[in-house]
Amino acid sequence: MRFVAKETVLNLPLVNRGDSKGTHLVKVGEALFGSKEIVLVSGPCAVESAEQVKLIAELALRTGTKVIRGGIFKPRTSPYAFQGLGHKAVDILRKAADEVNLPIVSEVMDSSHVDEYESIIDMLQVGSRNMHNFSLLKRVGKSNRPVLLKRGMSATLEELLSAAEYIMNEGNDQVVLCERGIRTFNDFSRNTFDLTIIPKIKQLSILPIIADPSHGTGDREMVIPVTRGAIAAGADGVIVEVQYDPDKAISDSSQTIKPEQLIELVEDIRKIAPAVNRVFR
Amino acid sequence: MRFVAKETVLNLPLVNRGDSKGTHLVKVGEALFGSKEIVLVSGPCAVESAEQVKLIAELALRTGTKVIRGGIFKPRTSPYAFQGLGHKAVDILRKAADEVNLPIVSEVMDSSHVDEYESIIDMLQVGSRNMHNFSLLKRVGKSNRPVLLKRGMSATLEELLSAAEYIMNEGNDQVVLCERGIRTFNDFSRNTFDLTIIPKIKQLSILPIIADPSHGTGDREMVIPVTRGAIAAGADGVIVEVQYDPDKAISDSSQTIKPEQLIELVEDIRKIAPAVNRVFR
Amino acid sequence: MRFVAKETVLNLPLVNRGDSKGTHLVKVGEALFGSKEIVLVSGPCAVESAEQVKLIAELALRTGTKVIRGGIFKPRTSPYAFQGLGHKAVDILRKAADEVNLPIVSEVMDSSHVDEYESIIDMLQVGSRNMHNFSLLKRVGKSNRPVLLKRGMSATLEELLSAAEYIMNEGNDQVVLCERGIRTFNDFSRNTFDLTIIPKIKQLSILPIIADPSHGTGDREMVIPVTRGAIAAGADGVIVEVQYDPDKAISDSSQTIKPEQLIELVEDIRKIAPAVNRVFR
Amino acid sequence: MRFVAKETVLNLPLVNRGDSKGTHLVKVGEALFGSKEIVLVSGPCAVESAEQVKLIAELALRTGTKVIRGGIFKPRTSPYAFQGLGHKAVDILRKAADEVNLPIVSEVMDSSHVDEYESIIDMLQVGSRNMHNFSLLKRVGKSNRPVLLKRGMSATLEELLSAAEYIMNEGNDQVVLCERGIRTFNDFSRNTFDLTIIPKIKQLSILPIIADPSHGTGDREMVIPVTRGAIAAGADGVIVEVQYDPDKAISDSSQTIKPEQLIELVEDIRKIAPAVNRVFR
Repeated sequence: MRFVAKETVLNLPLVNRGDSKGTHLVKVGEALFGSKEIVLVSGPCAVESAEQVKLIAELALRTGTKVIRGGIFKPRTSPYAFQGLGHKAVDILRKAADEVNLPIVSEVMDSSHVDEYESIIDMLQVGSRNMHNFSLLKRVGKSNRPVLLKRGMSATLEELLSAAEYIMNEGNDQVVLCERGIRTFNDFSRNTFDLTIIPKIKQLSILPIIADPSHGTGDREMVIPVTRGAIAAGADGVIVEVQYDPDKAISDSSQTIKPEQLIELVEDIRKIAPAVNRVFR
Repeated sequence: MRFVAKETVLNLPLVNRGDSKGTHLVKVGEALFGSKEIVLVSGPCAVESAEQVKLIAELALRTGTKVIRGGIFKPRTSPYAFQGLGHKAVDILRKAADEVNLPIVSEVMDSSHVDEYESIIDMLQVGSRNMHNFSLLKRVGKSNRPVLLKRGMSATLEELLSAAEYIMNEGNDQVVLCERGIRTFNDFSRNTFDLTIIPKIKQLSILPIIADPSHGTGDREMVIPVTRGAIAAGADGVIVEVQYDPDKAISDSSQTIKPEQLIELVEDIRKIAPAVNRVFR
Repeated sequence: MRFVAKETVLNLPLVNRGDSKGTHLVKVGEALFGSKEIVLVSGPCAVESAEQVKLIAELALRTGTKVIRGGIFKPRTSPYAFQGLGHKAVDILRKAADEVNLPIVSEVMDSSHVDEYESIIDMLQVGSRNMHNFSLLKRVGKSNRPVLLKRGMSATLEELLSAAEYIMNEGNDQVVLCERGIRTFNDFSRNTFDLTIIPKIKQLSILPIIADPSHGTGDREMVIPVTRGAIAAGADGVIVEVQYDPDKAISDSSQTIKPEQLIELVEDIRKIAPAVNRVFR
Repeated sequence: MRFVAKETVLNLPLVNRGDSKGTHLVKVGEALFGSKEIVLVSGPCAVESAEQVKLIAELALRTGTKVIRGGIFKPRTSPYAFQGLGHKAVDILRKAADEVNLPIVSEVMDSSHVDEYESIIDMLQVGSRNMHNFSLLKRVGKSNRPVLLKRGMSATLEELLSAAEYIMNEGNDQVVLCERGIRTFNDFSRNTFDLTIIPKIKQLSILPIIADPSHGTGDREMVIPVTRGAIAAGADGVIVEVQYDPDKAISDSSQTIKPEQLIELVEDIRKIAPAVNRVFR
């Protein structure tokens, strides 16, 4: 047996492009994923305190962020690592976001999280470690909330699209894909950001796809250039981790950018977007 | 930033070997994982019918199989692929196993599966796609059933041991690890069976580890030699997929061995085991 | 032993950025790699005939190509595959390039090739399969011709920079690096184009780096978006395979773009370049 | 485009098994690679001094080593690392081997090395970094010396067999393959030893294949169990790095075993070999 290149049509009728043009639109607050607009999602890796989130929410508003991200439960390799503030974090995040009138996206790690928080969280994130958690995929497929579906660390394109098909097959067609880097032998970045999957998804599927350069590189200094590359290659938006004093962040410290870097990133998006016939507001 | 080799002690007190000798023993029926005995687990990929499972259970008894495996829910990439017979499969499997007086191991895919089936299934399998499903890990950690924890497709050794620590941290120390192949660029096997993790786990951890050459290669003809290699390198047992007429199996057909291959595999284990100071009964 | 992230300074004094600003300039004809200018290199995978190369040379001139590429010896996996026209190809390529007054870059596969052709070929390419051929690296290091050094299929950043250090250590500091995709588990592209290495090289080294989206994706339809992404992320140029009637190309057919795609690619570079403070002439 | 599993017959007539049974025999001194006998190759990573090699040669004789290995030129990532003693090393190695009447295998890194040393070195090694150096493959194909061909770090099975076909196509059919680990994301071993390629090569090709657990793991403590696994899975022999005081070895220190470990390894081979119908003398 050998693996060889073959032109195939994936048997995934709901996510496949087929003969349709354009991208499926997914609305979260004022954000319209899949439209001409580049959507910026930003926020802390994990919700740590009300003060932290309040400052970040104000920064979000100033920078054109359309959705605030923030972890309430954190999927951590070690059971002894910070696991997120849970219920308390939801309240903090919701309150801070309401004050700046922005929607929030946060990760749900099992069906009970969806049951408990889907009325509060505007967009449900399925993280890379759960991309193959079929029970969770089916549950968010029954929600009326839009879903941000992150590619698994070693998921093939077919597996990513199949996971989206699981969600859509349950009736929820509000799915946004996200490339966040894959596992390779690389020695200089935590993951390998797979640029090519962005235009390939555009070619094969109707779903919008955004880039996560924070997890995709694991390196704060790489977030801005990789964002530029992703937007230029056709990404519909970008999700980044930002903190005041990121070196003190409890999780993902090395990949979290500083507020001044978020401002620079936004300036760069403003320059790149028109070059690929997109807008950033 | 670069990644460099470093001698480290993992901060995982429950799974770490520390100063202890020997391997933690996990008992399932007559099987004692981690003892001198090589444990054979065999059965169909998915439970398809009562006739199928009855024949396989009889084969199991004849071949020295100590635990019968069988999928009741199948984690399938596509939502349109066969998803397992579910509740009906549990009854079929339980009945067939009881007739030959053997315990069963079957995959649970979320906490509700554990709630529903832990009274019926002797050993709960957490599959490779769920190795990072922390909610599920915590739930099986609260069960009094032994757990077969499969390595994720791109899980590092540290991540595998951390997943086991999650389970043990909830109070369940009956954990058996399983190497089932990792994702690489390889063109001739579905996954790359990572032999070295077996002796490395023995060096670093007290937990038993078995090999899954069926998923580890994806190739029926490779199951026997890879079993031999795994046992010779120190594996505590092996789990294989077997079927009468495997080419008609609904899932995993190419990697499922035939009954005569299981008999040959057992003969090979009998020869290899004493060479590494183990027994097979 | 485990591999962990560590901030390290590579002991590679010639390629390391150290305290210097800007990028080392490498001149080939009118092309200045490492300057504000985006350099386009284009041409056929392999030189097949005088007619083919003449047409491509004229296209090169029209599109702003600054260096014509063309294979004279082809590193082919099978000994029975087309191995390049060799000596005859050099004459064809040289003559066609001279008629449009452009320099040529072509791959040399061992020291004897350098001896024979360094007086004729303007820029010597060391291919990905030879990135670890230290004898060849030393030989091109003694040449007075600029060198295009492609990253090996599984080379780390440190290995790529070390290969460049081998060349520079022999006295030749006219080195341009090239990212051409790495080997991963990906199922939808021949290689995985590693975008992040481009800004990381910029951060760590003084050497210019260009992108090869043809080999980096193996897919004609991905060449344009990946080119846009690479330029936006900071690449100093791009090298692409182009052919009239690429489906009839003897090698690399699926990744070779058509003339109209080269024209579209150039239009896209013209739009992206100013957004990252670069120019394309 | 997608890559899918496909049963294919490789178009490599010289290496393919076709209808033949058994393995092609390659004779080096008293060693007969591909016979019932397990062949042990041992020696230092690099020849460092006459004293070192003399001691190792005596150890080799005592342990049933049939071919002494020793690096005369070392392919090193950095140009500033120890590059081997070159000409002086050949004399040292030849003299020490002659005193115990054993043949030597040593790596040649380009055609000029073959010209200079093929009269002195009994078996020419093509290293993993040169597996795709087609000029070198063709040159050793014209030699009358047997060739040890190591798999490239990211070579597919097809590429490994094609490299062997290059050699055989020039007239030299005395080729022994070697699995030495591939590049993956693994965090606990330098490379990932790919056990399955051993039985797969046996299935597809007539060529003998041996295992290199030293490079395959990068970890002294893993060499013995991985040797056992490789022999049990069907390897025709094993090549290991051994040193008195390996922690002081100039290169590959962490993976070089101690003399007492070589003795233990030999005892293990003696136990495993008969279990797979092989002998070790």
